[in-house]
Amino acid sequence: MKQFGLLILLFFCGTSSLMAQEPADYVNPFIGTSNYGATFPGPIAPRGMASISPFNVAGPQNTLEKDSQWLSNPYVNENTFLTGFSHVNLSGVGCPDLGVLLLMPTTGELETNHLNYGSTYKNEVAKAGYYSTEIDKYKVKAEFTASTRVGVSKFHFPKGQANVLLNLGLGLTNEEGAMVQVVSSTEIEGMRSVGSFCYNSPEAAYPVYFVAQFSKPADNFGVWKKPATYEGVEAQWMGYNGKTRLMEKSTKMVVGDSIGSYFTYNFDKAETVEVKIGVSYVSIANARENLEKETNNKTFEDVYKDTYNAWNETLSKIKVEGGSEDDKTVFYTALYHTQIHPNTLNDVNGDYPEIKTGNIGNTDGTRYTVFSLWDTYRNVHQLLSLVYPQQQNNMIHSMLDMYEENGWLPKWELNSTETFTMVGDPASIVIADTYLKGIRDFDVDKAYEAMLKSADHLENNPLRPGLKDYIEKGFVTTDHGGSVSTTQEYNAADNAIAQLANALGIKDDYKRFKKRSLSYKKLFDKKLKMLRPRLQNGEWYEPFDPYAGANFSENIGFIEGNAWQYSFMMPHDIDGLIKLMNGGKGFTDQLQKIFDTEQFDMANEPGIAYPYLFNYVKGEEWRSQQMVEDLVRKHFKNTPDGIPGNDDTGTMSAWVVYSMMGFYPIAPGEPVYTITKPLFDKITIQLDSKYYKNSELVIEKETNGNGRIDHILINGKKHKGYFINHDDLVNGNTMKVILK
Amino acid sequence: MKQFGLLILLFFCGTSSLMAQEPADYVNPFIGTSNYGATFPGPIAPRGMASISPFNVAGPQNTLEKDSQWLSNPYVNENTFLTGFSHVNLSGVGCPDLGVLLLMPTTGELETNHLNYGSTYKNEVAKAGYYSTEIDKYKVKAEFTASTRVGVSKFHFPKGQANVLLNLGLGLTNEEGAMVQVVSSTEIEGMRSVGSFCYNSPEAAYPVYFVAQFSKPADNFGVWKKPATYEGVEAQWMGYNGKTRLMEKSTKMVVGDSIGSYFTYNFDKAETVEVKIGVSYVSIANARENLEKETNNKTFEDVYKDTYNAWNETLSKIKVEGGSEDDKTVFYTALYHTQIHPNTLNDVNGDYPEIKTGNIGNTDGTRYTVFSLWDTYRNVHQLLSLVYPQQQNNMIHSMLDMYEENGWLPKWELNSTETFTMVGDPASIVIADTYLKGIRDFDVDKAYEAMLKSADHLENNPLRPGLKDYIEKGFVTTDHGGSVSTTQEYNAADNAIAQLANALGIKDDYKRFKKRSLSYKKLFDKKLKMLRPRLQNGEWYEPFDPYAGANFSENIGFIEGNAWQYSFMMPHDIDGLIKLMNGGKGFTDQLQKIFDTEQFDMANEPGIAYPYLFNYVKGEEWRSQQMVEDLVRKHFKNTPDGIPGNDDTGTMSAWVVYSMMGFYPIAPGEPVYTITKPLFDKITIQLDSKYYKNSELVIEKETNGNGRIDHILINGKKHKGYFINHDDLVNGNTMKVILK
Repeated sequence: MKQFGLLILLFFCGTSSLMAQEPADYVNPFIGTSNYGATFPGPIAPRGMASISPFNVAGPQNTLEKDSQWLSNPYVNENTFLTGFSHVNLSGVGCPDLGVLLLMPTTGELETNHLNYGSTYKNEVAKAGYYSTEIDKYKVKAEFTASTRVGVSKFHFPKGQANVLLNLGLGLTNEEGAMVQVVSSTEIEGMRSVGSFCYNSPEAAYPVYFVAQFSKPADNFGVWKKPATYEGVEAQWMGYNGKTRLMEKSTKMVVGDSIGSYFTYNFDKAETVEVKIGVSYVSIANARENLEKETNNKTFEDVYKDTYNAWNETLSKIKVEGGSEDDKTVFYTALYHTQIHPNTLNDVNGDYPEIKTGNIGNTDGTRYTVFSLWDTYRNVHQLLSLVYPQQQNNMIHSMLDMYEENGWLPKWELNSTETFTMVGDPASIVIADTYLKGIRDFDVDKAYEAMLKSADHLENNPLRPGLKDYIEKGFVTTDHGGSVSTTQEYNAADNAIAQLANALGIKDDYKRFKKRSLSYKKLFDKKLKMLRPRLQNGEWYEPFDPYAGANFSENIGFIEGNAWQYSFMMPHDIDGLIKLMNGGKGFTDQLQKIFDTEQFDMANEPGIAYPYLFNYVKGEEWRSQQMVEDLVRKHFKNTPDGIPGNDDTGTMSAWVVYSMMGFYPIAPGEPVYTITKPLFDKITIQLDSKYYKNSELVIEKETNGNGRIDHILINGKKHKGYFINHDDLVNGNTMKVILK
Repeated sequence: MKQFGLLILLFFCGTSSLMAQEPADYVNPFIGTSNYGATFPGPIAPRGMASISPFNVAGPQNTLEKDSQWLSNPYVNENTFLTGFSHVNLSGVGCPDLGVLLLMPTTGELETNHLNYGSTYKNEVAKAGYYSTEIDKYKVKAEFTASTRVGVSKFHFPKGQANVLLNLGLGLTNEEGAMVQVVSSTEIEGMRSVGSFCYNSPEAAYPVYFVAQFSKPADNFGVWKKPATYEGVEAQWMGYNGKTRLMEKSTKMVVGDSIGSYFTYNFDKAETVEVKIGVSYVSIANARENLEKETNNKTFEDVYKDTYNAWNETLSKIKVEGGSEDDKTVFYTALYHTQIHPNTLNDVNGDYPEIKTGNIGNTDGTRYTVFSLWDTYRNVHQLLSLVYPQQQNNMIHSMLDMYEENGWLPKWELNSTETFTMVGDPASIVIADTYLKGIRDFDVDKAYEAMLKSADHLENNPLRPGLKDYIEKGFVTTDHGGSVSTTQEYNAADNAIAQLANALGIKDDYKRFKKRSLSYKKLFDKKLKMLRPRLQNGEWYEPFDPYAGANFSENIGFIEGNAWQYSFMMPHDIDGLIKLMNGGKGFTDQLQKIFDTEQFDMANEPGIAYPYLFNYVKGEEWRSQQMVEDLVRKHFKNTPDGIPGNDDTGTMSAWVVYSMMGFYPIAPGEPVYTITKPLFDKITIQLDSKYYKNSELVIEKETNGNGRIDHILINGKKHKGYFINHDDLVNGNTMKVILK
């Protein structure tokens, strides 16, 4: 009977999620936690600074071990060996960093070596703002939630000795070094060094500060330190050489590469302990203030409720109808993933570390960080401009503040360090795109000045290496890595500058940059119908293999891809490209070949607009409709491997959000969308009244036949072609897509 | 002409010290900086927490290199390669610790590796409270002084780039780990881990906090960090693997084992920079308060003047007349060395780290630290009781506070860690000795309780291992290391307890402990006329070699010595020992043999009273007179090797101070002195009116013949024998020693 009751209970719990009505209930944070999606399943508030991820990438028991390969995430779904819960994490990135401040509940005798205290786990539950699991070795249920700057844990301990470890040694980052000091039997403070994203710029390593507060005073506490091992004559006098030392009851400051603090309880019955960890990139005092302002007098349940509500409000900006439950889960989880990065950098009091200056800045609003712009300029910021324009406007503020501080716009900014990851000058595209969509509550003159600086400044220009050749010859030469890719990115940026110049009435600049934006043609090899690298002396680079460079192997001329994967990445001049390829058929054939020869990589940004490019050739639009639907179905699923690769701070997710809604921002830097088939019956986007005159945009699908688009109605009027301007879209109340 | 002028100037400088009149002018801090004396030549205020020592023990260029041997001092006179100036230092100890917070001026391009930036140096000048040298490589003159808690440096830079390095990696201690944060272009704060004295108790490692303030704002600054070197697959992605990184303009907290901060200036003419470093064992805030309260608005010269005056006042408590300039230098430098440890632990606001509890205590007076009691119970505290009774009384307060905090009296306490170095229970001897000399402004009941606890507590008694055997059998058995030495130390402590019990009127305890204090007789092998280890079953330990164990080699039964070096260490029962040795002749012959066979070690505490023991045999006192004078002349000189070995926090120095004054506290724990020949014509000791009724004690020498004592007059009355009670001495105005 008892087992039967349990089954009923499980069934009830199961159905409760099937019956979910709210957008936040459709979030499945496990999506992207396998297949190198690099998302994490633990809780985070929208654009939170703190987050909690189960950390299961240390220890040889795991399938993917962090030190045995290039691994950029704190959690891998198929791994099994858990060594803590990290409190600052990156989502969907391609390089290891953060993944530190590991909290771990254990029981019995204290053990501080993660290889010994680690455990398998089961019954994971992940929801927006919530994660729980049961830790096998200790029979401890662990629950987690988070506010913007505070991770909150709740551990259900059995009777007996319970331990909470705060491991400051282990982490995903390749930086080492931490400081810890027990303040009292309910509080620990300290810092951990992080940085060296992509194994670069170690001199820019920086601290994340924390304060941890416990709901119950510890019966015992202390600090552990595993020092470096001495060699030489002194080693013989050190019986303790290299051994971990426990500094019981120590309230002194301790530093080291492999240190941690433990709180121990002796429970005479099952008890819970809640731990709140406030973080800050400015100071310990700010970490404490963050903790207190956001969570004082709040229980675990209170914090979870607040964060759930914040997620639900955020995700409810788009309501979808029709489609399967899995479709909705894929959609809302993708939307959720676009609301993680860029994330909040400033403390509750407004303080944040400036980029480069070393000063502490202060903001009344939000200072955003984690700008993976090479990825996100393609669709993430366009999604924000449409659905969350206030966020997007504030992100432009953050980018311009970085320009003020650093002298340059960001390229791949991470917690106020410029990692200089990838190529191109994507900030200009994001700014122009935003402005041209009417989101203009920022200093556009300063923005334009910053864009010109990166476009024209020849000496020591950190954003545009190879700029002199590019301006003089029209292309970056093979003297610089990724010369073709980089030329294309500069063309895209220059087109965005031209568009903005045009809007600002600066005609000369418009002409100059428009011309520059088309210089990719000098790299077009008419025989191959492909872009191809050229040497400093102007000759084609030989030997040339357009298939070389797949799977991130090094390839002269191209960054993360081959000639196939780049040759169509010229979204602002597809018509020009069509001409170069001898018209629509030549273009379509060449494009189709990419898919037929499996050169298309859904997970790599240069090609992610490719499926939409058939829309540029009249009569071939059905290919885009079919291609996009097929790709959505194939690569985006309600499973841990349901993202085709690194989510790239939401870029893959933004792709599927748009693709499922039936339109896509095809030309970054230009306020235009191309239209395909919506995958839901009805999509209602709430529009922000501060930026848009309409309160909502409705997209409807009417299915009458085999599923190809017959025609499109905007406010009931038939729309010509498969492209629509941003203004036309948002100023119409409905877009109806009628399938034949 | 110019060179001639220089010579005159040098001569003038030279004579100025010859013409010195003040006691402080006789201090030569180079004494003890060779021959393992382990003193340092740099400035310190009386009983200062901070001090500055040139640090010349790193780098293979040096004769004695810290990592190639057991080296306990930051400076060795014959070394030549300087790598900085350390700001917390131990004086005259036998184990490496502290010697951290290394400040180093350099010029030209920044170099942070000490093996590269290190330099030879010349023209060292060392005085009480002052040290200067010229650093060859950089042509920088560096001057140093110190207040109690602040080291002050003054660097004379030539025109050009000047750098001040604060190296937090390099140090004498075997602990590693530091934290640093640049606060502004004139201030740095941070901490350094220290501890593991004698390569013991690494879990008791603790931080020294600091704040450094610069007189001129830096033109540039930053932090360097040399991280640990990665191995394995990740190393291939780290072009920076293991390399030092410069974090320019960084104002963020940085931690690591090998880190430092640099301040850089671009001087267009020769300039000076003053750097003040305040230290604290409590917090950075307290380090800053120490700095500001002690040195705000004071120039280098102001601080030096104050410290010079403090030294002069301290040393002027004893005035000596007659004797050579070298004699005075040896004497006042020795007195100076007795005024370094125990030193101040508390901050200006009274805060100090308690021992063991982890709490921050607070005192209105002075919390003393660095109690090397196995050494200092023999003569240092007796000297303080006589000349500096207020200091001694306050040290008893500190010892009792430790008992309150720790549950036990100190044994070898270092910055509120109990290092448990050496054997015995010396605190009881120090307390009894102090009380019996009438210095009683402390809670003697609590002191007596603490003494009884260590004497009687059988279970887990950290002060008296082997106590059960000792009480039951009368001796510690070979089950414990150093069984004979330990038995002797327990006898000495028990005698002190007996003496105090007697004074307190606790007759039963008096009898019990007096009996216990004589149990060494059970270890006396009548055939050998020596003390000899016994096994648990009572049998003598075999094989027995009374010469084994010299030079600190391990020796069953004895700690740091052999049977010869211990067998006469029973100062409270020399009469008993004489009986055991069949009377005065047997005793004298055996004692003389120690010297004749070179078994006497002037630098080792167990035997340091031996030269005085001839005084116990009537008619043999001339031997003590001659022996003591010979030993003073042989071992104590106005040269760097002018201390016979480790000064042992002033124990060697106190020996020579007493010996040159013509009397010695022969039986620690009993208020008695034995008398030999003063080496000055007249010695005037100022007595503290709070503790003594007379304002001074005068010792005079009258020389009429071959230099042996003919008779002794106390206040003009002939004194019987060569011993005098403390009260009789201090209550008499003069002791006159007439030589025949």
